[in-house]
Amino acid sequence: MLPIAKSLKQGKRGILERLDSGEVVIGDGGFVFALEKRGYVKAGPWTPEATVEHPEAVRQLHREFLRAGSNVLQTFTFYASEDKLENRGNYVAEKITCQKVNEAACDIAKEVATEGDALVAGGVSQTPSYLSCKDKAEVKAVFRKQLDVFVKKNVDFLIAEYFEHVEEAVWAVEVLKESGKPVAATMCIGPEGDMHGVPPGQCAVQLVKAGASIVGVNCHFDADTCLETVKLMKEGLQAAKLKAYLMSQPLAFHTPDCGKQGFIDLPEFPFALEPRIVSRWDVQKYARKAYDLGIRYIGGCCGFEPYHIRAIAEELAPERGFLPEASEKHGSWGNSLSMHTKPWVRARARKEYWENLRPASGRPYCPSLSKPDGWGVTKGAKELMQQKEATTEQQLKELFQKQKF
Amino acid sequence: MLPIAKSLKQGKRGILERLDSGEVVIGDGGFVFALEKRGYVKAGPWTPEATVEHPEAVRQLHREFLRAGSNVLQTFTFYASEDKLENRGNYVAEKITCQKVNEAACDIAKEVATEGDALVAGGVSQTPSYLSCKDKAEVKAVFRKQLDVFVKKNVDFLIAEYFEHVEEAVWAVEVLKESGKPVAATMCIGPEGDMHGVPPGQCAVQLVKAGASIVGVNCHFDADTCLETVKLMKEGLQAAKLKAYLMSQPLAFHTPDCGKQGFIDLPEFPFALEPRIVSRWDVQKYARKAYDLGIRYIGGCCGFEPYHIRAIAEELAPERGFLPEASEKHGSWGNSLSMHTKPWVRARARKEYWENLRPASGRPYCPSLSKPDGWGVTKGAKELMQQKEATTEQQLKELFQKQKF
Amino acid sequence: MLPIAKSLKQGKRGILERLDSGEVVIGDGGFVFALEKRGYVKAGPWTPEATVEHPEAVRQLHREFLRAGSNVLQTFTFYASEDKLENRGNYVAEKITCQKVNEAACDIAKEVATEGDALVAGGVSQTPSYLSCKDKAEVKAVFRKQLDVFVKKNVDFLIAEYFEHVEEAVWAVEVLKESGKPVAATMCIGPEGDMHGVPPGQCAVQLVKAGASIVGVNCHFDADTCLETVKLMKEGLQAAKLKAYLMSQPLAFHTPDCGKQGFIDLPEFPFALEPRIVSRWDVQKYARKAYDLGIRYIGGCCGFEPYHIRAIAEELAPERGFLPEASEKHGSWGNSLSMHTKPWVRARARKEYWENLRPASGRPYCPSLSKPDGWGVTKGAKELMQQKEATTEQQLKELFQKQKF
Amino acid sequence: MLPIAKSLKQGKRGILERLDSGEVVIGDGGFVFALEKRGYVKAGPWTPEATVEHPEAVRQLHREFLRAGSNVLQTFTFYASEDKLENRGNYVAEKITCQKVNEAACDIAKEVATEGDALVAGGVSQTPSYLSCKDKAEVKAVFRKQLDVFVKKNVDFLIAEYFEHVEEAVWAVEVLKESGKPVAATMCIGPEGDMHGVPPGQCAVQLVKAGASIVGVNCHFDADTCLETVKLMKEGLQAAKLKAYLMSQPLAFHTPDCGKQGFIDLPEFPFALEPRIVSRWDVQKYARKAYDLGIRYIGGCCGFEPYHIRAIAEELAPERGFLPEASEKHGSWGNSLSMHTKPWVRARARKEYWENLRPASGRPYCPSLSKPDGWGVTKGAKELMQQKEATTEQQLKELFQKQKF
Repeated sequence: MLPIAKSLKQGKRGILERLDSGEVVIGDGGFVFALEKRGYVKAGPWTPEATVEHPEAVRQLHREFLRAGSNVLQTFTFYASEDKLENRGNYVAEKITCQKVNEAACDIAKEVATEGDALVAGGVSQTPSYLSCKDKAEVKAVFRKQLDVFVKKNVDFLIAEYFEHVEEAVWAVEVLKESGKPVAATMCIGPEGDMHGVPPGQCAVQLVKAGASIVGVNCHFDADTCLETVKLMKEGLQAAKLKAYLMSQPLAFHTPDCGKQGFIDLPEFPFALEPRIVSRWDVQKYARKAYDLGIRYIGGCCGFEPYHIRAIAEELAPERGFLPEASEKHGSWGNSLSMHTKPWVRARARKEYWENLRPASGRPYCPSLSKPDGWGVTKGAKELMQQKEATTEQQLKELFQKQKF
Repeated sequence: MLPIAKSLKQGKRGILERLDSGEVVIGDGGFVFALEKRGYVKAGPWTPEATVEHPEAVRQLHREFLRAGSNVLQTFTFYASEDKLENRGNYVAEKITCQKVNEAACDIAKEVATEGDALVAGGVSQTPSYLSCKDKAEVKAVFRKQLDVFVKKNVDFLIAEYFEHVEEAVWAVEVLKESGKPVAATMCIGPEGDMHGVPPGQCAVQLVKAGASIVGVNCHFDADTCLETVKLMKEGLQAAKLKAYLMSQPLAFHTPDCGKQGFIDLPEFPFALEPRIVSRWDVQKYARKAYDLGIRYIGGCCGFEPYHIRAIAEELAPERGFLPEASEKHGSWGNSLSMHTKPWVRARARKEYWENLRPASGRPYCPSLSKPDGWGVTKGAKELMQQKEATTEQQLKELFQKQKF
Repeated sequence: MLPIAKSLKQGKRGILERLDSGEVVIGDGGFVFALEKRGYVKAGPWTPEATVEHPEAVRQLHREFLRAGSNVLQTFTFYASEDKLENRGNYVAEKITCQKVNEAACDIAKEVATEGDALVAGGVSQTPSYLSCKDKAEVKAVFRKQLDVFVKKNVDFLIAEYFEHVEEAVWAVEVLKESGKPVAATMCIGPEGDMHGVPPGQCAVQLVKAGASIVGVNCHFDADTCLETVKLMKEGLQAAKLKAYLMSQPLAFHTPDCGKQGFIDLPEFPFALEPRIVSRWDVQKYARKAYDLGIRYIGGCCGFEPYHIRAIAEELAPERGFLPEASEKHGSWGNSLSMHTKPWVRARARKEYWENLRPASGRPYCPSLSKPDGWGVTKGAKELMQQKEATTEQQLKELFQKQKF
Repeated sequence: MLPIAKSLKQGKRGILERLDSGEVVIGDGGFVFALEKRGYVKAGPWTPEATVEHPEAVRQLHREFLRAGSNVLQTFTFYASEDKLENRGNYVAEKITCQKVNEAACDIAKEVATEGDALVAGGVSQTPSYLSCKDKAEVKAVFRKQLDVFVKKNVDFLIAEYFEHVEEAVWAVEVLKESGKPVAATMCIGPEGDMHGVPPGQCAVQLVKAGASIVGVNCHFDADTCLETVKLMKEGLQAAKLKAYLMSQPLAFHTPDCGKQGFIDLPEFPFALEPRIVSRWDVQKYARKAYDLGIRYIGGCCGFEPYHIRAIAEELAPERGFLPEASEKHGSWGNSLSMHTKPWVRARARKEYWENLRPASGRPYCPSLSKPDGWGVTKGAKELMQQKEATTEQQLKELFQKQKF
């Protein structure tokens, strides 16, 4: 058996140093979804005030990802821009300012990072300001407020993630680059490209030109779809003769039925996604495919729990030469079942078994795919949305009734 | 909106005092499965050495269940009998004795219990000694070792859970009653009864006669199956004119396709159960049905995460008069989506929507039900097992090949 | 290869003579469903006026079943009682009297029977008179009108089939026995028994006591359910020390989700049952199970097409010593694919392949099971029905809206 | 209600006359599949010797399609080329020559056509000669043999159908055009184009240039896929400024999971396709979509039974002004259920009900989609095939074992 990670801990090297040397960097999983299930994040606003309210819960989740093999601890600063926190103000107490949330997030991540071989990455994500048509200067100012904290707390590198519009992502990268630190940038888009129709290849090119050293996708789609998108990004960069590292952090939900805007339009989002949750074996397949595609920053997003991250680390253990700490509590490919009293359970202690199993849902009255909600929406509804007008209760009801199932 | 729990914390009253006054008592969720996913428990042995190795992880999980509404914190002493820990010795370091595991479990639970309105219950479960045909005195001695710790640590009451044979459960109850504390007893059986064919009604009668004040089922089956079993227990008690409180702690997996021995025989156990995970809405239906059946101790077992327990507390909030602390981060029936920018996501902010949704699995190549493995096993295999002979690698392979899929 | 049937045609022996000698008798398939798809029967009324209107279509279907291996041609007189034909009068021209329909049915069946080794059986089924509470004498008079034709046309034996109430079935048997011909009687019930709650075992006993030599079930449920019901009938007869031959003619639709009243309550009935249609391999499994249970009159009902009947004949060819004529156009277990140009199609030319295949529905948005409609109907709806009051359009709409999906 | 067809029968007008005047022409359904189920065609060879052996069965099927609304009776000459019949010689008696099969097919179709308003179309399909690399002259000679019969029997027009290679289809059209009769040409391809990679748009252009007045697709794919392909053909023709009528005759099986070569590669082909069979309502949706796309020759292929063709005629009855004869035995959108005794069955007598129903398969252990067999075949297997070498039994077995399920 390969040695476990702890014994291998090394002098801390930077993200680009690692990637340059050919290492696989393992990301972490999805904080908002994991902490929603644990009772610390509210679905809907999805804001990270837990860093101030319940630091012990955030700390514990970081620690679990670290044990599972993560080489990067992202500060829990998703949707922690000032405009977003204010926007969702009713959920967050007055005194919990944007600055406090971001500072606490940095402190927690840095504290846990000392327990293992991990870097801390400060993260920014899409802003309400952009969607409400604020201009470039205003949007950049929003990112800069978060960056100020990251610089002050001296995080190792920076991530701009979860952008639906490449324009906004480019602005974010430009701001983050002001710090001089390495920048990674991921968009939550599929193979069809960003919300204005910019294809993935071009998105990648623009992001690299803006200063990103690592580009890729996160969230919104399952692993297969994300890898397809990263492949298009890779091809775009090759065509433009640009170099950058590739990164993927997909959902831990099977979403072959998604439309252009991803899992948010699925009728199960966000409170009935359970039957779509991927198994550890699905993740191992993902990790292998990502690696074979040339991706070297491999992590997860919403739905990824610590055991999913461990599955990446276990799949790529031969390449990396070691196992993560949490593999002390996990037998590779089910081999911990080899002592079970029932022979048919012992018979599950093998790779071939889990690799080929087609797991049942236990839900015979449910289908296997859903039509995304956006599909059936009438033209009128789309126009209403485009006008960004508030729809009244009655309008909403009517729109809903017009949707076909 | 109903007030949240914290403001209602009261002088600590005992388990029977609560039940006598008509209160609903909410149990906690499944520690071994939750901590396996977090990287602290090994599937296969399923032993709780984490209480010593990683107390912060156990503490955090207790805290999450408490916030979600649990009124009982079960000490994490599942499979913590001395014979079991030794049996699985290769996974557990020498110095982690049975006593240390049980003591640490009590300390952690008691510490967290002070943060809210919860009792601490010491728990014992089925033993290898019973299965390997040790006699009554020997088996009782095993339980007594754990009880000694519970008495020393002065837990509030005791639970004998996860018994497949009523005979062993009765012995456990008899030992626990020596303490003078209230005892609850649950079996991991379905409507067909225990492994020797004793029907649920008779199991309940024997447990109450042995001294249990609360009886019911836990683990091995989904909520519907568990409630069916508890109903049979209730009828058995009524026929025998015995009184006891009823308790249910089912799986958080849909298992309509289980055979007599429950989810262990499902081909997905334990590493591909994801598509079977219940949603919070499934749990609300379970809580309502359990309540209507007269069950007043309502919790969960393997697969139950904190948000599942919160769903019990939210469903029964009208009866109980308050919401749990974690409901600060949860809108009832999806109402936290009412501010979403997309009208079709806002349209999900209603009870009717989630109650009627049939969630898709996203897995079109997978079936909805599985044949439990036990079914296809040849006669020869069953005989081998009954002889409790070790099967060789080759025998195992042959048996497996004979199984039909 | 076994010889095909034609060369084996023998002097015509009666139904009991065949059964007494240990032969397997193969029934035919479902006329109303097959002819509905061919454009000659109207779903809803399901009456057999086609015998007069389009005798060539009826003749052709008889011929196909004969070629497929049927040893019995049932006259197409389902729902051909006078009260039923009048009841559905708007669909049937004035001049097409009950007598004409029954006479034409006998003539067609007798004509085709001469083409092979088949007996002609005159059939009666449940009547509107019974449901509208006519008395015994009136109901018997209805059956007697059909019997008069069968006697005049000198059919070989008689079948009373598709009865939901054993009382009416007994009356039918009593009338048919007046002819002195052998009588078979099948009910369209499941293991829960008839609509008044008489269990299958008692139904069988009453039918045999009334004079039936052959008893069993037909229609309403799939093969598995029907065989379960026949098993209960067999046990009932054994307990009563009565002797009779057993018969089964199930649906060719998978209906594991049926309630007590069978497939009529399934939401797919009758116009969207396609995904439930059984394959020829399903039928071979059914034929084998039926044979092993001791059933010797094995046929089908609604949904059974000629190739389904052929599957019975092929499965039991080793026992019977010959294949049906239509097997000239069928390779056993797919062996006609052995010359295909693609190797992977050739690889399907084997029993093991088809026996183990789990066929996909091609419908990823559809579930695998349905809730029968009866379940969700409100109490008010049930009361309305019991009063046999006509429901108005508006009432109907309201009832429908109250049903849960 | 609209009048039924019979009263509207008109002087017989040619196919182009009808299409020129804007009429919708309804094709017929799939003979080889329908007659296989009836016991007259052998799966594997799929040859039409039944025209000689059992003309009554072929006649009856023509009649049913005519009653259902078909305006074209295709001679049952699928795979009736001399090379094919010889190829499959072991299934067909010596004396049944190619000429006899084709002549009988014409006679039967012409006889039935006089019973209603239908044209007779002589049909040719792909040949073994083309696949075994015979040259253009040889392949054309094969088509010409069939054409000679069609000319002698004076059919109304000609159809070249079921071609996987546009080159062969063009040769067929060229031969058929020698007769001076109108020619329709359909290929069994999907949106990816023919087996040499010629896209659908170019296929259409080549066929029209070769002389086809009507072009489109038949067989191999479900309605949605076929319509997508016809759309590409339409766009190809528009770009080339060519005019032709469009035609579609898809499968009556749902095949969203097909690869490039269609349903033959699905593991269910051809003996377990039942769960994929489309309902009449699926066909109504298809007919409407086809009409809206501008297709005016709308029919079906394998799996289409008479009731499916009737569904086309009923959906387009408003446009056509009349209903087919078989609608005497069918209530539009289930309205024949409006007199049912159970209110919940009556509640199904409405369009909205059937349009929105998601029918269950009754098969909870089966998936909804399959991986086509071709996918998993190793490179070696593909090479073997391309070399058109016969694979030995052993090679076949090895290839099969390498395929993943």
